[in-house]
Amino acid sequence: MTNITMADGSGGSQMHKLIDSVFLKRFSNPILNQKKDSAIIKIGDKKIAFTTDSYVVKPIFFPGGDIGSLALYGTVNDLSVCGARPLYISVGAVIEEGLDRSVLDRIVDSMARAASTAEVQIVTGDTKVVERGACDKIFINTSGIGEVYYDDLSVNNLMAGDCVIVSGPIGDHAISVISKREGIAFDTLVKSDSAPLYGMIRKVLRSSKEVRFMRDPTRGGVATTLNEIASPAKFGIVVDEAVVPAREGVRQACELLGLDPLYLACEGRVIIIAAKGAEKDILKAMRSEKVGRGSRTIGRVTEDNPGRVILETVSGGKRILGMLSGDQLPRIC
Amino acid sequence: MTNITMADGSGGSQMHKLIDSVFLKRFSNPILNQKKDSAIIKIGDKKIAFTTDSYVVKPIFFPGGDIGSLALYGTVNDLSVCGARPLYISVGAVIEEGLDRSVLDRIVDSMARAASTAEVQIVTGDTKVVERGACDKIFINTSGIGEVYYDDLSVNNLMAGDCVIVSGPIGDHAISVISKREGIAFDTLVKSDSAPLYGMIRKVLRSSKEVRFMRDPTRGGVATTLNEIASPAKFGIVVDEAVVPAREGVRQACELLGLDPLYLACEGRVIIIAAKGAEKDILKAMRSEKVGRGSRTIGRVTEDNPGRVILETVSGGKRILGMLSGDQLPRIC
Repeated sequence: MTNITMADGSGGSQMHKLIDSVFLKRFSNPILNQKKDSAIIKIGDKKIAFTTDSYVVKPIFFPGGDIGSLALYGTVNDLSVCGARPLYISVGAVIEEGLDRSVLDRIVDSMARAASTAEVQIVTGDTKVVERGACDKIFINTSGIGEVYYDDLSVNNLMAGDCVIVSGPIGDHAISVISKREGIAFDTLVKSDSAPLYGMIRKVLRSSKEVRFMRDPTRGGVATTLNEIASPAKFGIVVDEAVVPAREGVRQACELLGLDPLYLACEGRVIIIAAKGAEKDILKAMRSEKVGRGSRTIGRVTEDNPGRVILETVSGGKRILGMLSGDQLPRIC
Repeated sequence: MTNITMADGSGGSQMHKLIDSVFLKRFSNPILNQKKDSAIIKIGDKKIAFTTDSYVVKPIFFPGGDIGSLALYGTVNDLSVCGARPLYISVGAVIEEGLDRSVLDRIVDSMARAASTAEVQIVTGDTKVVERGACDKIFINTSGIGEVYYDDLSVNNLMAGDCVIVSGPIGDHAISVISKREGIAFDTLVKSDSAPLYGMIRKVLRSSKEVRFMRDPTRGGVATTLNEIASPAKFGIVVDEAVVPAREGVRQACELLGLDPLYLACEGRVIIIAAKGAEKDILKAMRSEKVGRGSRTIGRVTEDNPGRVILETVSGGKRILGMLSGDQLPRIC
C-alpha cells in the first residue's frame, strides 16, 4: 500500500510521476497528451484554450494578494501563455462551515476586482459547503476559456542559440506566502508577484514572430519549469545563475530558510524562449509593461545536454539543475 | 459577524440567497445573470455551453457510483440540459495527504470509464495535495464544454397547460449515499441513479420542437428545481404527489429518516417542461432509453399561483411546495 504524500502535489518530479501514472495513463487522448498549460480545442473555425486549477493556498490572505485574486490570475495566465486571450472564467468554491461571512465577501470582492483588471467575465460557478474540519477555510477552483490568437507555441520549436527570458524577479509569491504563514518578518516585506500576464504577452507576440514557447513558473519555480520545457526537447538549457533576478528580501529569506530561489513559485512571471535575434524587441515589449519591467535574459538553449537544464553557478562551476524533488513548500497556491 | 452554515451549501433557498448576495452581486454580467446550468457563450459562429461543479460527496464510494463517475456525469448533465453536446471536461483534484494510492486509482479508473461512456474527453487537469486533516480524502472539480445544438430552452418559454415530466424514480442517489454514510441497511438496496443524460435528451430534442425547458433535479431535489423554474416565470406549477415515481426502498428510507422524496437529490434524472401536445412523443423518446424508462408526467404549468409550486397531496389536499430550506442532507454530491 502506498499513500499520497505532500510531494505528490509539489509541482515537482514526484507530481509529474503521479500525473503520468494515475491520470494521463487512464485519460489519454491527443489533446490531453500535449501537456500544455491549457488544452487547445477547435470549435468551428476558432481555436479555444481551456484550463483548470484548484487553489488551496494557506494562508488565504498574504502580502500582495489572496486566494481569490490568485485563483483568477492563475487561470488567466495559464490561458495567456498558450497564446490565448482569456475571456470566460468559472468559479467553484468549497467552503468550510463556520467561515466568517465577511472573509468570503473579501475574497469574492477580490475576485471581482481581479476579473475586471484582467478583462474577463466570471460566467458560471458552484458553491459547496463542507462541515467544520472537512476542508481548510476555502478552496477555489477556477477554469477558463480563452480564444487562441497565436498558435505556434511549442517546445518542438526550440533551436540551439535561443534565449531564455524571465519577466522579473523570481520567488516573490512563495516568500510572501511562507513569511505570512510562518509569521516570519524579514527586513523587507516581500509582496506576492501575483498578476495577470495577458497584456504583456500580447505585446510580446505582436512585437515578434520568433517566440518559440512560454510558460509561467508556478509550483516548482523556474528550475522545474525549465526542466518541463527541456525534457521533451532535443536541446538543453543553460542558466546563468549570476543574472537570475531576485529581490534582496527573497535572497535573505532563502538564506534563512535554506531555500533556492530557482525553485520558488512565481504567480505573475513568465519564461519566454525566443530566437536570439528577437531578444531585443521582446525585452523592449516586456519592459514596457509594469509586470515585465524587470525582464532579463537568464540563459540560452544549447545543443549540449539535450533534455537537461545546466546551471552555471555564481562561483563559476556547472551543475545539473533538476526538477523540484520532495515538497519544498506545500500549499503555496 | 455571520458564519457560513451547512444550509448555505444545501442547494435550497439559503444557498440561493448566498449566491445572489455574495457572488452574483459582484460578478454580475449578462451571461452569468441568466442563471442557467451552464453559461452559454458565442465562439465565432458557434455557441458553446460552459459549466463547473465541485464534488465533495461523503462517502466517496456508494452503491451505484463514486465521486469520480459522479463528478463526470454531473458536469455532462449540466451541459446536456442546456441543449449542448458534452465534449471536453477538465478535472481538478484536491487530495488529502495519506490517501491510499489504490483509492485514487479506483476513482480515476471510474472517471475514465465514465468519460468513455459519456463520449467526452478529459483534456486538462490539476492536482493539489493538502496536509492530513485539511480536506476529507478527495474533492474533485469538473468543468465542461459542450457545443450547443438546441438553443431555445428557457423558463420564459413556459405556457399554461405545459406538462411537467420527470425521467424516472426520484431520490435514489441521495438515499444510496445516506444509507452508506450512516451505515443503515434498508430492506432493498437503493443504488444511485448517477448516469449521463445526453443520449436521452438528444433523442427528446430530436423528437419534438416543443420542449420549453429542462433541468436536472440535483441538490434540493425535484421540489427545489421546480421552484427554480417557476419563480422567475409568470406561471405556477402543480405537482400531483400520487404519480411522482419513487422506489419502495426510497419511500421506506424516507419514512424511517423523516425525509421527503421530493427534496432528495437525483444525479441521473431530468425534469422536462413541454407543450401538452408533445407529451406523448417526448415520453416515448425518453422511455426508449434505459435512463428514461421510468419517465412520467407529474404535473402541469398553470396560470394560477404564478411563481409558485403547488402540491396536490395524496390525501386530496393542496399545499405550497417550497424550496428546500435548511440542510436536509449535506455532502450528497
